[in-house]
Amino acid sequence: MGIHTYFQSLTDLERIIRCPGKFKFQDHSVAEHSWKVVQYAKTLADIEESNGVAVDWKKLYEITSSHDYGEIFIGDIKTPVKHFSLELRSMLQQVEEGMVDHFIDEHIPEEMKPIFRRQLREGKDDSVEGQILEVADKMDQVYEAFAELQRGNTEKEFVVMYRNALIKIKEIELHCVKYFLDHILPDLVREGSRSPIDIARITDEALAM
Amino acid sequence: MGIHTYFQSLTDLERIIRCPGKFKFQDHSVAEHSWKVVQYAKTLADIEESNGVAVDWKKLYEITSSHDYGEIFIGDIKTPVKHFSLELRSMLQQVEEGMVDHFIDEHIPEEMKPIFRRQLREGKDDSVEGQILEVADKMDQVYEAFAELQRGNTEKEFVVMYRNALIKIKEIELHCVKYFLDHILPDLVREGSRSPIDIARITDEALAM
Amino acid sequence: MGIHTYFQSLTDLERIIRCPGKFKFQDHSVAEHSWKVVQYAKTLADIEESNGVAVDWKKLYEITSSHDYGEIFIGDIKTPVKHFSLELRSMLQQVEEGMVDHFIDEHIPEEMKPIFRRQLREGKDDSVEGQILEVADKMDQVYEAFAELQRGNTEKEFVVMYRNALIKIKEIELHCVKYFLDHILPDLVREGSRSPIDIARITDEALAM
Amino acid sequence: MGIHTYFQSLTDLERIIRCPGKFKFQDHSVAEHSWKVVQYAKTLADIEESNGVAVDWKKLYEITSSHDYGEIFIGDIKTPVKHFSLELRSMLQQVEEGMVDHFIDEHIPEEMKPIFRRQLREGKDDSVEGQILEVADKMDQVYEAFAELQRGNTEKEFVVMYRNALIKIKEIELHCVKYFLDHILPDLVREGSRSPIDIARITDEALAM
Amino acid sequence: MGIHTYFQSLTDLERIIRCPGKFKFQDHSVAEHSWKVVQYAKTLADIEESNGVAVDWKKLYEITSSHDYGEIFIGDIKTPVKHFSLELRSMLQQVEEGMVDHFIDEHIPEEMKPIFRRQLREGKDDSVEGQILEVADKMDQVYEAFAELQRGNTEKEFVVMYRNALIKIKEIELHCVKYFLDHILPDLVREGSRSPIDIARITDEALAM
Amino acid sequence: MGIHTYFQSLTDLERIIRCPGKFKFQDHSVAEHSWKVVQYAKTLADIEESNGVAVDWKKLYEITSSHDYGEIFIGDIKTPVKHFSLELRSMLQQVEEGMVDHFIDEHIPEEMKPIFRRQLREGKDDSVEGQILEVADKMDQVYEAFAELQRGNTEKEFVVMYRNALIKIKEIELHCVKYFLDHILPDLVREGSRSPIDIARITDEALAM
Repeated sequence: MGIHTYFQSLTDLERIIRCPGKFKFQDHSVAEHSWKVVQYAKTLADIEESNGVAVDWKKLYEITSSHDYGEIFIGDIKTPVKHFSLELRSMLQQVEEGMVDHFIDEHIPEEMKPIFRRQLREGKDDSVEGQILEVADKMDQVYEAFAELQRGNTEKEFVVMYRNALIKIKEIELHCVKYFLDHILPDLVREGSRSPIDIARITDEALAM
Repeated sequence: MGIHTYFQSLTDLERIIRCPGKFKFQDHSVAEHSWKVVQYAKTLADIEESNGVAVDWKKLYEITSSHDYGEIFIGDIKTPVKHFSLELRSMLQQVEEGMVDHFIDEHIPEEMKPIFRRQLREGKDDSVEGQILEVADKMDQVYEAFAELQRGNTEKEFVVMYRNALIKIKEIELHCVKYFLDHILPDLVREGSRSPIDIARITDEALAM
Repeated sequence: MGIHTYFQSLTDLERIIRCPGKFKFQDHSVAEHSWKVVQYAKTLADIEESNGVAVDWKKLYEITSSHDYGEIFIGDIKTPVKHFSLELRSMLQQVEEGMVDHFIDEHIPEEMKPIFRRQLREGKDDSVEGQILEVADKMDQVYEAFAELQRGNTEKEFVVMYRNALIKIKEIELHCVKYFLDHILPDLVREGSRSPIDIARITDEALAM
Repeated sequence: MGIHTYFQSLTDLERIIRCPGKFKFQDHSVAEHSWKVVQYAKTLADIEESNGVAVDWKKLYEITSSHDYGEIFIGDIKTPVKHFSLELRSMLQQVEEGMVDHFIDEHIPEEMKPIFRRQLREGKDDSVEGQILEVADKMDQVYEAFAELQRGNTEKEFVVMYRNALIKIKEIELHCVKYFLDHILPDLVREGSRSPIDIARITDEALAM
Repeated sequence: MGIHTYFQSLTDLERIIRCPGKFKFQDHSVAEHSWKVVQYAKTLADIEESNGVAVDWKKLYEITSSHDYGEIFIGDIKTPVKHFSLELRSMLQQVEEGMVDHFIDEHIPEEMKPIFRRQLREGKDDSVEGQILEVADKMDQVYEAFAELQRGNTEKEFVVMYRNALIKIKEIELHCVKYFLDHILPDLVREGSRSPIDIARITDEALAM
Repeated sequence: MGIHTYFQSLTDLERIIRCPGKFKFQDHSVAEHSWKVVQYAKTLADIEESNGVAVDWKKLYEITSSHDYGEIFIGDIKTPVKHFSLELRSMLQQVEEGMVDHFIDEHIPEEMKPIFRRQLREGKDDSVEGQILEVADKMDQVYEAFAELQRGNTEKEFVVMYRNALIKIKEIELHCVKYFLDHILPDLVREGSRSPIDIARITDEALAM
């Protein structure tokens, strides 16, 4: 039924809660996460630019803002499931892409189909924009997990989430990653120093891996 | 770490919301759904028994109470995903079973492993107990969808859920299904007669299929 | 109006919150509590069986799943009220039973009335099933209170709830109680060791009484 | 431990929800209800005064603001329970008063005990202030039920609540009741005219009884 | 449309949350806050009376119960905004008063307009009642902030709120302030002694200013 | 304390609810609104581009994603307040800008200050990007209000919000506005045809103004 169906579907992501099942002091919807990723990515791209790297802002806009749109169709599948086997992971990604394609075929007007196919593609490729998206996405896991650890949440899942996100970030070679590790992460760790959980140690271990 | 890990994990199902994403006037956790399925199944089994059918109550107890326990590991995957392809559906079921097996291997003491393997198996087989579970599970979809339609929720998903659940129920040959169609469903439809949505017509169409 | 009225009433227990008034990090509905009691009881009964005790699974099913159904009519009356006087306690129980009887008389079809009278009876008698229900019900108080204490909730009510539930459990002579005290409780206490509240000491004091 | 214990207990009434169990579009805490009763009563007393009736504002202040404080100890016991038998009702009231007395004995300093005993007494006596409290308390039931009916809530409980509250109000002989029936209720009914539920008819029937 | 419009508007204050934006373990609506202020003020006035001070209970009733009614029109504007400049603060107060006046002009019947103008006026004048209102209002900030600090909330905003409220209270020369500082605050501080945040030190510093 | 303070502050916008006070079937946080505005704007800009208009994607990215960041400091001030007087409106905007400037001065490192000053500037200027932001922002009011009206919410505020947003949109001369009016709005109105509120009439009236 046209773009209206697409615009109206966006509100569904306000009702999909990240990391379902585990006890959290604060819930986050996929819509809220998506907005924060957009914001982080903007600053990360600014840092790249100020280091002389060219950024395709249109592409960055498209891939960051839509990077979790597919969850409207498949929900927030738990991370352990995604990592269960490479085969399942690839099949789930096929399903998500298939459902997005099917949505575009059915609802998006002919002349706009190419635009939507480009926008709703998987964005985490090897380009600088794809890498910035990956960093920004993991950075939100760092912040989500940190806020739980800082308030004394003892669910192991948040230690794992925090650690794995850090490990993933530090492996990406971007100026903004260096900036994050040198100038942002230390402030975050300092702020978490009163937590009953030893955030500094978890951080050091992750960075040493 | 033993049975404690299992007992403590149960509370996670209080935090997994059924049918994520869609607008609902009332949310239901998987734990709440599971309890209602246990209750429906009990009365359905009573009806079978009063028609001379033998019921294995231990088996019924085990399969109804645990039938969604696996969602602790994989979350509430959206129905359209499950129905996307038979291959994916079967692979997701394998993953869920694999994760349950892995949990039992790691956490359940040796002497209790066989009990847990039996309890946490997929229960929807062709036995009378397996069929009662299927009816009870679908019956809760009928009630969940009905409550939304009755209050004027116009999301198509609830019409689809209501209709598909009814179609599934009526295909099962049990005395309790006949009782449900003859004595329970008419009361429900009558109660929904003031809704802006024509529940009676949707019901008739489903039963005629 | 028949079984429909009964089935539909079940959802009301999703909206009655246990332990109203006190600050909690996590709320629990009576429906969620009921499901967890069903799950604990199943494992407790498995332990009894593996020690050679005969279990009536139909009875256990009936009394565990319905043990708080009467709260639909009277709500979650605060524990201190129940313990205020034996006279009041017995009168409240009469009221609850009277309202359940009245519901059955009015809504349940003639041929099913005996079944519902049996199912919705008070289940905590001296039989092994009645005792398992008592243990499972108190075990959920242990877990609910533990989760609050572990996160640093300083409301005295949760210390009292945890202690009283333990005292009640340890007085019941069942194999599964011994298993709980020897194999489950120590894991739980160990997990609570990082809490600002001294859960180990509270546990030892309760067990020594 | 003194007045601090009393002041701190007030927040518990923010966590006791009125009319537990039934589906509502909007929940109301006992604290919120109490504030609205204070507000209604103020205007009702203004109307009495402007008709030449003397109002004891200190008494009115005391009884309206504290009229549900006892629910901290016994919770929001469902109305049907209260009306089950005169004997139970009177016993529940004794328990509530006993627990309030016990709280005062234990926590309130000697010199302030008489003040608290007076403030936390049952306020609905035959004085003009006691009657105003009764009207204001029932008026909030009218508004709570009306808001549900207006939005299409079909739970019978809200029709009953609306009707019974109106019947109770119209039996009280105060100038402000006449004002309410002549000048406020008609506006409310007019506003509800688009509801799928026939609020005007329910109102007329209640007033005719 | 008359008093009905006013009565119905009250429920809006159940949906305005105090201190929006900051992480809190417990939210408070403006309606709930208002009720607690009414309750504190009552006891504070009792203390004044028992020290021989005359209290105008009608005035106290009016100004405490309605002191935040204007937030229906302007919402809960963040404290830093209010303190940004004296000019803005005074302009915001003019706007709030203008909107209240406009509401009275449009909705309140002629004969009741003077009553509502008096009731909904700004109450924090130099009279004993105005000062009691100020103390009670700040006392609720003390309790709200304390409950967060006690549970380990590390948002600086709550330290600031707690400290500033105490400083404001101690500057008011009333018997009840002395009673609060001598008899209530020490109990509160003692109760907070297990918090990871040093509430005693923050309290001492505030009182020493 | 650097960029960390900025990144961490973003989560505050998950806790500021739009349109506070009024009854809503669904709440929306400012973070969720911001993400939807980003999404609408992207498609609107695509439409402009396909009509040959040049779009500065970096600018569009910056102004859409940050357009409500200032609400972290001043909260969601109610629309009627903003429209009370031009003087107040301009003063509030000054305050918001002042607080944003102050935040940048205090927290953002020297070399990034110009970037943040540009990003957090008011974006609704006369450029095509500024106009797209205005349309996208108003479009979310259309969708938020529509969802309430469609479910039968009778609060007048949502009729006003829907109408005013439409009037504002239709006055902006962009290709995407024409597309919205011709191709998106009719689908939306058709979908609302079963609502008890006459959305088609309200729409026609707004477009005719």
